[in-house]
Amino acid sequence: MTKTLIRNGRIVTAIDDYRADLLIEDGQIAAIGKQLDVGPDTRVIDAAGLLVLPGGVDVHTHLENTFGDSTTADDYESGTRAAAFGGTTTVIDFAFQGKEDSPLDAIARTQAKASVGASIDYGFHVILTHVDDKVLGDMKHAIRHEGVSSFKMFMAYPGTVMVDDAAIFQAMRLVGEHGGMVALHAENGNVIELLIREALAQGHTSPRYHALTRPAILEGEATHRGIKLAELANAPVYFVHLSAKEALKHVIEARDGGIPVFAETCPHYLFFDESVYDSDDFSVAKHVMTPPLRNKESQDALWTALKTDDLQLISTDHCPFCMKEGHMGRVHQKEHGRHDFSKIPNGAPGIETRMTVIYDGGVRTKRITLNRFVELTATAPAKLFGLFPRKGTIAVGSDADIVLFDANDTQVISAHTHHSNVDYSLFEGKHVHGVVKKVFSRGELIVDGEQWLGRPGRGQFLARGEVGGF
Amino acid sequence: MTKTLIRNGRIVTAIDDYRADLLIEDGQIAAIGKQLDVGPDTRVIDAAGLLVLPGGVDVHTHLENTFGDSTTADDYESGTRAAAFGGTTTVIDFAFQGKEDSPLDAIARTQAKASVGASIDYGFHVILTHVDDKVLGDMKHAIRHEGVSSFKMFMAYPGTVMVDDAAIFQAMRLVGEHGGMVALHAENGNVIELLIREALAQGHTSPRYHALTRPAILEGEATHRGIKLAELANAPVYFVHLSAKEALKHVIEARDGGIPVFAETCPHYLFFDESVYDSDDFSVAKHVMTPPLRNKESQDALWTALKTDDLQLISTDHCPFCMKEGHMGRVHQKEHGRHDFSKIPNGAPGIETRMTVIYDGGVRTKRITLNRFVELTATAPAKLFGLFPRKGTIAVGSDADIVLFDANDTQVISAHTHHSNVDYSLFEGKHVHGVVKKVFSRGELIVDGEQWLGRPGRGQFLARGEVGGF
Amino acid sequence: MTKTLIRNGRIVTAIDDYRADLLIEDGQIAAIGKQLDVGPDTRVIDAAGLLVLPGGVDVHTHLENTFGDSTTADDYESGTRAAAFGGTTTVIDFAFQGKEDSPLDAIARTQAKASVGASIDYGFHVILTHVDDKVLGDMKHAIRHEGVSSFKMFMAYPGTVMVDDAAIFQAMRLVGEHGGMVALHAENGNVIELLIREALAQGHTSPRYHALTRPAILEGEATHRGIKLAELANAPVYFVHLSAKEALKHVIEARDGGIPVFAETCPHYLFFDESVYDSDDFSVAKHVMTPPLRNKESQDALWTALKTDDLQLISTDHCPFCMKEGHMGRVHQKEHGRHDFSKIPNGAPGIETRMTVIYDGGVRTKRITLNRFVELTATAPAKLFGLFPRKGTIAVGSDADIVLFDANDTQVISAHTHHSNVDYSLFEGKHVHGVVKKVFSRGELIVDGEQWLGRPGRGQFLARGEVGGF
Amino acid sequence: MTKTLIRNGRIVTAIDDYRADLLIEDGQIAAIGKQLDVGPDTRVIDAAGLLVLPGGVDVHTHLENTFGDSTTADDYESGTRAAAFGGTTTVIDFAFQGKEDSPLDAIARTQAKASVGASIDYGFHVILTHVDDKVLGDMKHAIRHEGVSSFKMFMAYPGTVMVDDAAIFQAMRLVGEHGGMVALHAENGNVIELLIREALAQGHTSPRYHALTRPAILEGEATHRGIKLAELANAPVYFVHLSAKEALKHVIEARDGGIPVFAETCPHYLFFDESVYDSDDFSVAKHVMTPPLRNKESQDALWTALKTDDLQLISTDHCPFCMKEGHMGRVHQKEHGRHDFSKIPNGAPGIETRMTVIYDGGVRTKRITLNRFVELTATAPAKLFGLFPRKGTIAVGSDADIVLFDANDTQVISAHTHHSNVDYSLFEGKHVHGVVKKVFSRGELIVDGEQWLGRPGRGQFLARGEVGGF
Repeated sequence: MTKTLIRNGRIVTAIDDYRADLLIEDGQIAAIGKQLDVGPDTRVIDAAGLLVLPGGVDVHTHLENTFGDSTTADDYESGTRAAAFGGTTTVIDFAFQGKEDSPLDAIARTQAKASVGASIDYGFHVILTHVDDKVLGDMKHAIRHEGVSSFKMFMAYPGTVMVDDAAIFQAMRLVGEHGGMVALHAENGNVIELLIREALAQGHTSPRYHALTRPAILEGEATHRGIKLAELANAPVYFVHLSAKEALKHVIEARDGGIPVFAETCPHYLFFDESVYDSDDFSVAKHVMTPPLRNKESQDALWTALKTDDLQLISTDHCPFCMKEGHMGRVHQKEHGRHDFSKIPNGAPGIETRMTVIYDGGVRTKRITLNRFVELTATAPAKLFGLFPRKGTIAVGSDADIVLFDANDTQVISAHTHHSNVDYSLFEGKHVHGVVKKVFSRGELIVDGEQWLGRPGRGQFLARGEVGGF
Repeated sequence: MTKTLIRNGRIVTAIDDYRADLLIEDGQIAAIGKQLDVGPDTRVIDAAGLLVLPGGVDVHTHLENTFGDSTTADDYESGTRAAAFGGTTTVIDFAFQGKEDSPLDAIARTQAKASVGASIDYGFHVILTHVDDKVLGDMKHAIRHEGVSSFKMFMAYPGTVMVDDAAIFQAMRLVGEHGGMVALHAENGNVIELLIREALAQGHTSPRYHALTRPAILEGEATHRGIKLAELANAPVYFVHLSAKEALKHVIEARDGGIPVFAETCPHYLFFDESVYDSDDFSVAKHVMTPPLRNKESQDALWTALKTDDLQLISTDHCPFCMKEGHMGRVHQKEHGRHDFSKIPNGAPGIETRMTVIYDGGVRTKRITLNRFVELTATAPAKLFGLFPRKGTIAVGSDADIVLFDANDTQVISAHTHHSNVDYSLFEGKHVHGVVKKVFSRGELIVDGEQWLGRPGRGQFLARGEVGGF
Repeated sequence: MTKTLIRNGRIVTAIDDYRADLLIEDGQIAAIGKQLDVGPDTRVIDAAGLLVLPGGVDVHTHLENTFGDSTTADDYESGTRAAAFGGTTTVIDFAFQGKEDSPLDAIARTQAKASVGASIDYGFHVILTHVDDKVLGDMKHAIRHEGVSSFKMFMAYPGTVMVDDAAIFQAMRLVGEHGGMVALHAENGNVIELLIREALAQGHTSPRYHALTRPAILEGEATHRGIKLAELANAPVYFVHLSAKEALKHVIEARDGGIPVFAETCPHYLFFDESVYDSDDFSVAKHVMTPPLRNKESQDALWTALKTDDLQLISTDHCPFCMKEGHMGRVHQKEHGRHDFSKIPNGAPGIETRMTVIYDGGVRTKRITLNRFVELTATAPAKLFGLFPRKGTIAVGSDADIVLFDANDTQVISAHTHHSNVDYSLFEGKHVHGVVKKVFSRGELIVDGEQWLGRPGRGQFLARGEVGGF
Repeated sequence: MTKTLIRNGRIVTAIDDYRADLLIEDGQIAAIGKQLDVGPDTRVIDAAGLLVLPGGVDVHTHLENTFGDSTTADDYESGTRAAAFGGTTTVIDFAFQGKEDSPLDAIARTQAKASVGASIDYGFHVILTHVDDKVLGDMKHAIRHEGVSSFKMFMAYPGTVMVDDAAIFQAMRLVGEHGGMVALHAENGNVIELLIREALAQGHTSPRYHALTRPAILEGEATHRGIKLAELANAPVYFVHLSAKEALKHVIEARDGGIPVFAETCPHYLFFDESVYDSDDFSVAKHVMTPPLRNKESQDALWTALKTDDLQLISTDHCPFCMKEGHMGRVHQKEHGRHDFSKIPNGAPGIETRMTVIYDGGVRTKRITLNRFVELTATAPAKLFGLFPRKGTIAVGSDADIVLFDANDTQVISAHTHHSNVDYSLFEGKHVHGVVKKVFSRGELIVDGEQWLGRPGRGQFLARGEVGGF
């Protein structure tokens, strides 16, 4: 039985909002209509009272990524399952170019892990750690022949992943010519490194100093720099995890001028602020992510920018490390930095909670419309990263990645009930409206209430086309 | 036969772009799908190779409007027919409140004309010429019970339609509370009036002085003023026919801050500039519209703003007056000002050419995407003015207002072949890509190539809901 | 004895700061030097330990000005005496053009009062209440032949002094050609008038509603409008009593672009804020001035702008009305508005306290330097309004208007001890550093400690030259 | 005879402008007055018809500075003599910290050269090429005990003098605490280095590629970065040779906010533009300085900023290298780069022409006032760099560094007649108004028409105090 009819739902896209039946055939959306007639070979699912949404697209996750000594707590199997339970049906994760590596090696190596673990569709950005003529050639190949058209570079973390401005500029210029895009982690790494060393030298070792040594002004500086490099390179640029109004300001100014600058923010910046760092307790390590949480003014500015399209999308930067318990030996990960905040692995989970917390805290509070919610979580990421129209919308011919979402039901978020391997949630105990009821991936029902029907390896690699062009 | 199937077209909305069949039933879109099965009672139209677009929504037209001694050359009959031939299936025109009038009188009076003449669906903005407690009460009634929720006010033309800032503020405050919106004609009328009197006193009577006495800085000033009045009134505001970068600047700044400020521009500002006024010839009177054409920098800024969504939509300000020949005695209208530019009736035609010239000069030139074209000409006007989802999109349940558009075919624009009563076109002789092949209004085929199948009186009044909220 | 030597003082100008002797001869500064030799016919005054400052120049005072039924509590005699005790040796007051008046009539009428009353030198701005060809001609005459080159116009107070934008523009254009300047009271009068009427209609009669009906955004709006009119007129413009950051923002932007826009603020905006209005007590009437006091953010912004030269000078807008007791029948003036805030005469005293409170609250607090203090209170007003180098500096050949100021001595400000006719001080009871010890006007010692040595009629009219040019 | 009287001149300072006699005694200004009586032991110089100006202060010169293989064509002897002939009586030059050096070593070494060569007074900035705890300690010592309180750092020239952002930040923080200031050469060195290598690899070797590989956007980027580092360090910052509107924009924005950001520009950016690079001729090497000349828009913006005080001063960046002939073996210096533009020593002469070209092209053209001319060339540099009131003004007690300037006389600038060792002038053949007639340094007449009365070694080292504070 390859046909499924979702009957009577309220279909919402980035623009539209209407009631209709939706027919899935061969993994794609075959028809949408009023009271569609279907034959007996069609499974019929009643969606009365439910929202029928495009599956979420999360373009910033870290599954089975290793930073220094630590590997994120979720691998492709647990991570994509958690994503699916949260209403996300596509992720773009990272392929890490090692010191001696080509981007192509990185892709192949990551493909090997993802192809056996992923239960939803996925793509890759390559993390570039060095650039030379060989690398530039391989980038071009990756864009044209491998379906990998976005490349992340770090302006922070000197000595490990930081690259200099000339490397960024070279990569930008290459992708600008060939339909790719550079995604930047924008913080002034050298000054931060100095501040960290000074803090430690003064005996400031507790997790709060992670935030105090990464001031917002240095995210602002690097964001401006990144924009200017992109302008000179005549290339689009994407800023990951934008958190500070000091950075946002430059994105706004560039976009006002029609310059192709894009940025995401993450749920934690929208719901938490720097006041969580007002403690020397080690539990603060849960909030040790980069950039750190910012002040209330920044938070308000991010919400405004989500409305005005100065921020185009919301990703999770899901980068989970266990406080205590974990799987596959990934235990006590945050503990590495108990006596030295700089050793705490940076990151927080979020892959499973994105859709619900944004619905609850954004749509219900009327900060954004329901259409905009869909745009921010599915349509815009798909368009910007070359996945559209296959992903990110509900339209005839698109993949049947569909979420049935009950906007009226409620749930309490907890690490006890979530599906990630990590042992904490930033939203622990939060009571929210909005529950994912059923999730289809290419027409296959993979989540049905609490039941997991997906399987590792069913996820397909998404060869992406031109990016940055919308 | 109430069913029509549009087969094999390329359906484009503000977000989506896909190939499918589209089934119309009872005037609405009933289904969209791959190879839809239909019975023998269904008319099938082959749209292979054609774009299937939502019918255009033009929220700024002047049909049978009288200004001083002159009445626009098109009445509802000719004007809506011309609109339809141009791919526009909805207009919002104006109901003019006379000196002794209530807004409700204005609506009733205009309704009488429109209901017998219109061949496509229509709504009204009320032009407010004075405000008092009675008028404010009637505005509230109009919003709640008459489906008229937008009100145009003039910051220019002292002595006739100009109202003072207190009147604007009062109207804004009222609509802000009740889900309506004020649309402003923003120019500093008092200073312009002085400049006109001085020019005439100096013997400067030719049409070019229309432009020279309406400098861009005075549109900028009034636009800023209108925004501040709206902020104080806690109401959305809409600027009609924004033409100057000096005005746009303030719209951009307000929108960056999340303030609900909206603006349209018109095709003539996008394709012509002030160089047309470099002549004392009376033919310049064709370009006597308000605001006048601006410089190249403004034109470039408008195109950028259409891309960045700092301008949300494109309307025509179709306000036709005959140079020589016309119908119903409307002849030699522009001639009234042959010896005094201030007597030239202000306005230019455009209702029929909007979709094609924007497609040709915007989409083909890659200044805007095809999706954005649909958004600017149909979706955004419908959403902003309370017509969505009935109008402005292609989705199940929406009115089947649909245009089959051949993007590859070409035409030469001319007053000899257009369907308006006016005797000239700004685009005379222009060779453009993009031809409207068929137009459906609520499922009824009203334009079929050169054939007119519509009829006066078939257009329905559109009672609109809340506006300004998107 | 026409020679005076001020020995051993610390001479401070807008740029310099040094110790020297200063010789006065024939009312002017004859020499400055180290240990100047003087003959026996020279009076020697020891200024060791004292600052030797240029006499203050206050370009915004209201002496014997009548608004509606109320005349300010100080006439030229009491007002200029109070000014002198406060270290101010020059004022520019107002000549009011009545409804049937010419500016020249206004000057002559005011001259008659000032010439007999003033004990320090003075000039006039003409308040223009209407503009026509005759008035424009008289303005030109006033600039060229009467030494009156500045003209104040009101964008507020409809029905009395408000003029429309065309009148302002005409006046600006005239002065722009002839070396004059328009000074604007920038508030949107029509909207404020509406808010006042509405407040009263709702029974809101207490003084605090004066502030609530004059929101800062309306000062911002009018300031922007005034700047744009000046740009179009190609003329400099001066904003009186700038109080709100919403207004300052536009001044900053214009000045960044090199446009000749100037503005003053007043001491009350620097030391008080809107929190004084948090009471329904009638004593709030003391703070009923226009514009009203603003919020803390505006106050901070004003101080920053004084430092950055976005505000060029500090004037008092001394406009005193008695709460209870007064002279010449000017009693209970504020009481007129006890039951209707709109009837409270607008204004507050300040002529005598300017130098001291700015020294104490600006220089001692290190918000501004001592040089900048001199520039703000003497040099810049003299330069901007055509009095330099006769006034506003300490240089050979300048008028010997000199203040010996003890920066280390302290005083308590009080209406009981001040020299104005008004019966209250905004700074009542304030303990400040900085005491005016001696004041010379054209070399004549007119204030010696608490002793008044001046006399009415000794003040000279200052025919001013070109203004706005620095 | 230690007394000199300059009679009847027109004395001009940054604020004042008056006619008086000026008495010099013991190298200082002893008195200023009307017809000062002097005894027979006083030399009297008639300055009727002449401007009496404070001697120029040039805070950016390169005398006997070695970059790579090239040493500037002027040593202290020829350079300070040329300065004096041009009306400049104070220079601040550079002490270069070598790779193994302390700043204190650099000062001592440079002092040795300057003390024997300089004929006018001088001070030093230290060029910092690396920063560590030792260096920071020495900086503090230099500020407190050596009278060297400013430190130049390079954001350009990787591999030689470029330092990273952390080094800049550390230096800024140190000087911010101790009353010093960092001066930045702001260009993004890494990207420029890449562009240079690429240009050469493509065979682009002619001098014009110097400009093409240093785009203005990279000066803008680095300027922004420098400002943000200074904000974080809570320190003032000074930008040398600001040339591009892209950089100026950030300075303006910071200054509007009251942040202590300062910048100079240089005469060549005010009188030449990038069109000089439209040639592959090697003579273009004369204009190979860093940053390169910019476009006309930047030039206009610089002039506006000089007026608005967004630029505070004009220095020369006198950095002369011979095209052909020279002294002391410094010949054919620019020739080193005949086949590789990157080998052309960067710099151009200007020390002798600054006062005249700015007078002629700024004051006579009414772009700036005469007072502002004095402020830009003498007062502001003296104040900003801790030399005031000893230098930079004409006031009792100041050093008698005085220039008699004939604003009506004319001259033709030429390398044939100038006093520098370099063999070309950017202004060759330019006919200008304004001739330096006599120059006094601490009361000693060192230039008298074409006659040189100065001598090497008479110049004194200026131990400076706190900087950046005005």
